[in-house]
Amino acid sequence: MDNPDRARVPRESAVDLERLFDRLWPLNRSLTGEGVRRTHAILGELVPLRQIEMPSGSRVFDWQVPPEWVLREAYIVAPDGRRLLDVAQNNLHLVGYSEPFRGRLSREDLEPHLHSLPALPQAVPYVTSYYARRWGFCLSEELRRALPPGNYDVVVDTELRAGSLTLAESVLPGESTAEVLFSTYTCHPSMANNELSGPLVAAFLHRRLAALPNRRLTYRFVFAPETIGAIVYLSLTGEHLRSHMLAGYVLTCIGNRSPLTLKRSRRGDSAADRAATHLLRQQPEHRIVEFYPSGSDERQYCSPGFNLPVAVLTRDLASYPEYHTSLDNKSIMDFEGLVAAVDLAFDICCLLERNRAFRGTVMQGEPFLSRYNLQSTLGARRERDRSVEAIKWLLNFSDGAADLLAIAERADLPFWDVAKAAEACIAAGLLIPVD
Amino acid sequence: MDNPDRARVPRESAVDLERLFDRLWPLNRSLTGEGVRRTHAILGELVPLRQIEMPSGSRVFDWQVPPEWVLREAYIVAPDGRRLLDVAQNNLHLVGYSEPFRGRLSREDLEPHLHSLPALPQAVPYVTSYYARRWGFCLSEELRRALPPGNYDVVVDTELRAGSLTLAESVLPGESTAEVLFSTYTCHPSMANNELSGPLVAAFLHRRLAALPNRRLTYRFVFAPETIGAIVYLSLTGEHLRSHMLAGYVLTCIGNRSPLTLKRSRRGDSAADRAATHLLRQQPEHRIVEFYPSGSDERQYCSPGFNLPVAVLTRDLASYPEYHTSLDNKSIMDFEGLVAAVDLAFDICCLLERNRAFRGTVMQGEPFLSRYNLQSTLGARRERDRSVEAIKWLLNFSDGAADLLAIAERADLPFWDVAKAAEACIAAGLLIPVD
Amino acid sequence: MDNPDRARVPRESAVDLERLFDRLWPLNRSLTGEGVRRTHAILGELVPLRQIEMPSGSRVFDWQVPPEWVLREAYIVAPDGRRLLDVAQNNLHLVGYSEPFRGRLSREDLEPHLHSLPALPQAVPYVTSYYARRWGFCLSEELRRALPPGNYDVVVDTELRAGSLTLAESVLPGESTAEVLFSTYTCHPSMANNELSGPLVAAFLHRRLAALPNRRLTYRFVFAPETIGAIVYLSLTGEHLRSHMLAGYVLTCIGNRSPLTLKRSRRGDSAADRAATHLLRQQPEHRIVEFYPSGSDERQYCSPGFNLPVAVLTRDLASYPEYHTSLDNKSIMDFEGLVAAVDLAFDICCLLERNRAFRGTVMQGEPFLSRYNLQSTLGARRERDRSVEAIKWLLNFSDGAADLLAIAERADLPFWDVAKAAEACIAAGLLIPVD
Repeated sequence: MDNPDRARVPRESAVDLERLFDRLWPLNRSLTGEGVRRTHAILGELVPLRQIEMPSGSRVFDWQVPPEWVLREAYIVAPDGRRLLDVAQNNLHLVGYSEPFRGRLSREDLEPHLHSLPALPQAVPYVTSYYARRWGFCLSEELRRALPPGNYDVVVDTELRAGSLTLAESVLPGESTAEVLFSTYTCHPSMANNELSGPLVAAFLHRRLAALPNRRLTYRFVFAPETIGAIVYLSLTGEHLRSHMLAGYVLTCIGNRSPLTLKRSRRGDSAADRAATHLLRQQPEHRIVEFYPSGSDERQYCSPGFNLPVAVLTRDLASYPEYHTSLDNKSIMDFEGLVAAVDLAFDICCLLERNRAFRGTVMQGEPFLSRYNLQSTLGARRERDRSVEAIKWLLNFSDGAADLLAIAERADLPFWDVAKAAEACIAAGLLIPVD
Repeated sequence: MDNPDRARVPRESAVDLERLFDRLWPLNRSLTGEGVRRTHAILGELVPLRQIEMPSGSRVFDWQVPPEWVLREAYIVAPDGRRLLDVAQNNLHLVGYSEPFRGRLSREDLEPHLHSLPALPQAVPYVTSYYARRWGFCLSEELRRALPPGNYDVVVDTELRAGSLTLAESVLPGESTAEVLFSTYTCHPSMANNELSGPLVAAFLHRRLAALPNRRLTYRFVFAPETIGAIVYLSLTGEHLRSHMLAGYVLTCIGNRSPLTLKRSRRGDSAADRAATHLLRQQPEHRIVEFYPSGSDERQYCSPGFNLPVAVLTRDLASYPEYHTSLDNKSIMDFEGLVAAVDLAFDICCLLERNRAFRGTVMQGEPFLSRYNLQSTLGARRERDRSVEAIKWLLNFSDGAADLLAIAERADLPFWDVAKAAEACIAAGLLIPVD
Repeated sequence: MDNPDRARVPRESAVDLERLFDRLWPLNRSLTGEGVRRTHAILGELVPLRQIEMPSGSRVFDWQVPPEWVLREAYIVAPDGRRLLDVAQNNLHLVGYSEPFRGRLSREDLEPHLHSLPALPQAVPYVTSYYARRWGFCLSEELRRALPPGNYDVVVDTELRAGSLTLAESVLPGESTAEVLFSTYTCHPSMANNELSGPLVAAFLHRRLAALPNRRLTYRFVFAPETIGAIVYLSLTGEHLRSHMLAGYVLTCIGNRSPLTLKRSRRGDSAADRAATHLLRQQPEHRIVEFYPSGSDERQYCSPGFNLPVAVLTRDLASYPEYHTSLDNKSIMDFEGLVAAVDLAFDICCLLERNRAFRGTVMQGEPFLSRYNLQSTLGARRERDRSVEAIKWLLNFSDGAADLLAIAERADLPFWDVAKAAEACIAAGLLIPVD
């Protein structure tokens, strides 16, 4: 059987996801600025967001919030008068956080300001310089090789000014203060898998959870620029998260055609790891990788001073050919697969909702199951009955320490079978929760 | 080398076992009643048994002892006057615990009272209804299909009356109050592997152990109806077992031609598990399976309130094609294999007898083995000497915590080699027991 | 990258080792006596040795130091007047510790005093009788079969007299009192792999370590007769070793052409085991075997009353065809391989020197690596950078408990990469040692 809560909430379609993708794609996001705010405004139509602004120059742990970046226009005029590398045509043409510049340079002097990828000659790379002042343009290796000698007029009309870093959160309260975190980033300009896949999954997951009746757990969604955003968020909520977080997941690069993948938390055996591992193993294609300290915002959540139970749900964490180039666009996205990613995240939440430890009320000898209508009164040879099997595992191993997931793993049964058996046993008065 | 105690006690022959089988086979056992008592009377010729009677209606943990069932006669008279499904011909024809009934029914009205197995059309199934009042007959699917329309006269001359549930125990005391339990059941009517194999092995194992000189351990044998019998026994002795049991085994379905099999206890690493695992692994064909909470009386001994170190010795625990049908008869029995099962159980007991933890008297540097005549005084290249090897393992690892079996496992040596080395070292004053 | 300390010390050549081999080979070593002292005198030219003499008859733990053995001459004169089995021709011809004898014996009476190996008909075996008085001669099976009938004149001009057992140590002090032990033996007469390989590796390892600037650890080298020598040494220093030893290695049989091999200590997971395992796994050919209680002096160091972290570095611990025969001679030695053995032992020491546990100074969120010049300020797609990777592992896992080796193992990176990253992080003020 499958997660019974799937039927209790509306399920988004691939088209819903694609429509939201198309609206978010053109915005020129960066670490700070209006592109981030406009992205949050659109997401806010699905998810009630509380925006947080952290002023430029603020000290956060070992970091300092950089100035806010304003981009007005940027392009190059070639010797023949053609306008090239116009950021209005492609957000990736300008190095992120380029300082202002205006001037005429020879082909030779322009060279150190150009970025391309010899190994991917048709791709425009994505390059940033948040913490060191420079300017630069990104272009395909093919175009670079074709640039003729002569003088080029460069226009970089930008500004680095005191402003703020923008992040947003949404908390869905439950009966318990125990929390599940979903964190994703909103700082990359036009990239598809490595930017929009995470916020899309988070937004529609939020919609499903908001519709789930009788939520036991509290859910926290964070949308923030990568790295510095997570660090700012931890500076504000780290102590709270440390005492309330049951499980957390970074959502990133989850929109292409690779199999769903769990990167475990630094702890490796947290509720976040156990729940995702159990559910992924029921999918024919999946990957489970151990924690390593590069990647996305799990680097911050799992820094040793916090060591939060935060894993990563992804398909290809920074390891696909189109990564950080103009090739990471809508053509590599699989919107049906994005719905499957929402399904996985939703199933994880429902598993965590139902996963508790119980103690049996009859511990000496088996309970007399026929009396509770949990087993037939006719003693006879019969087919393997998975529901009776699940009940027996549950009653034998509910010692107050093992939770349902631990029992399901030991029994090699799907969690949902054991959870259903638990409902029957609770109704019969044979199990009582210990927490 | 093999268990040296094998030569110190008489060994039964396959013919001995077959003769006892033939006497026990015809008795119409059920959960209660004279069939059980007569079975115990015959077993009592080999094993001095103390019979225990628990009155009908007694509350035991979550259960209640059912009434005693008396069967006088039961059959059906077909429309053509032939007597069919006579329980005098085959004990399995009547559903166990059928309530009394006498009357004439049409073929159609008879239908819901008939039990057969479409997948095994020549087999008569074994069906019981201990805890819900009904009556019924069991027959082959072939015969069922051939029953003509017409009226059938049904005679079920039974009685459900206040009486008692019958179990029996035999305790062989040793020097120590530490106990080894063997538990088997005596409640199935004419079935071979799934009834008589267990009591046969238990009875002859008892005979060997009674003949073993200087027994260190105490042995407890229990013969009881399955499930409710074990529950009753636990209600009487559970606390005692909890504080005295070193190891226990349920003996069941151990008489057919499948390989000897250990189903581990719920604990998984108890002395019962370790001893049987070590000895089975020295047999070319064997199976070792982890605990699961269906099966035989280990379900009760391993219920979480007791969690006793009780494993199962079997060949095919409820998983062979003839299980719970008339096909489970003498033709599937292997009496030589039953002797091998007694050998295994006896070897387990002898291993447990000898398995103790020791502390060396020389712990700093090796003992000077030549002085104790434990090693040659001639230093020379020689063939691997397993006895010196066992002595060295033993002396190096006898730290007061590791027992002989743990050392044998670490050394990858047969237990008997290590036990023999221990005898030599004890005689030399190099080892002293810590318990 | 490789051990950076390799370049800081002189490296011996295979010829250096071979020259020392040729000087040590002819000496007639035994458990005691002048052969041992002359061996130590030659080793003392490379290694400043402190000689220790333990008087004959001393009680050490369960042992007693045997008398000192003096060998003047020993041979047999055959019926035809030829002198045979002259110990002046081959040290192995006389059974070690033979008592004095002079007399004429028939071929038949001579027989029980002869030792040969039918399975290796051309080899002279190595035989000793340290603790029981006898005399004997060793010869090839071929020669034995050719001995004609007649009378043989036997001359065994030896003496067993009060003297002493000779061992030697050399301690190279470091900043810390934590010690690394290297122990090898000097009691076998003319054998190559099973005698000289260990002292040769120890002597040149000592030379390298003596040249290593800023040694943190203390190094202790022990040259002693096998078994009784280690027992005597433990009786003198065991308590000191117990409180100071970080890691120790017995060096034995490490000179032939088999792959370098670690035999783990009894503990199995000590620093000695971990360091050698990590480095051996980077070699394409190697073997790692678990502890077993026969072998060389690890039997004493790992006796349960000491249980020191002493492993064995070897190639073929007592398991090669030429073992304990005249075939264990220079022809089976690989002097280049001996240099590789010194390399391994030296690398182990350098690893232990650098292997410490650290605590990060920034534990909440990642440190801002660009500020410390540990990461580029340009955010761009780039090739995997193993140095940044090592820094990230190190900073994430330096929680004050995990040492560099543990982090290298978890990261699946060579220790040297992690150690280099640690240097950079210490310089940047991001890591401080906890011990």
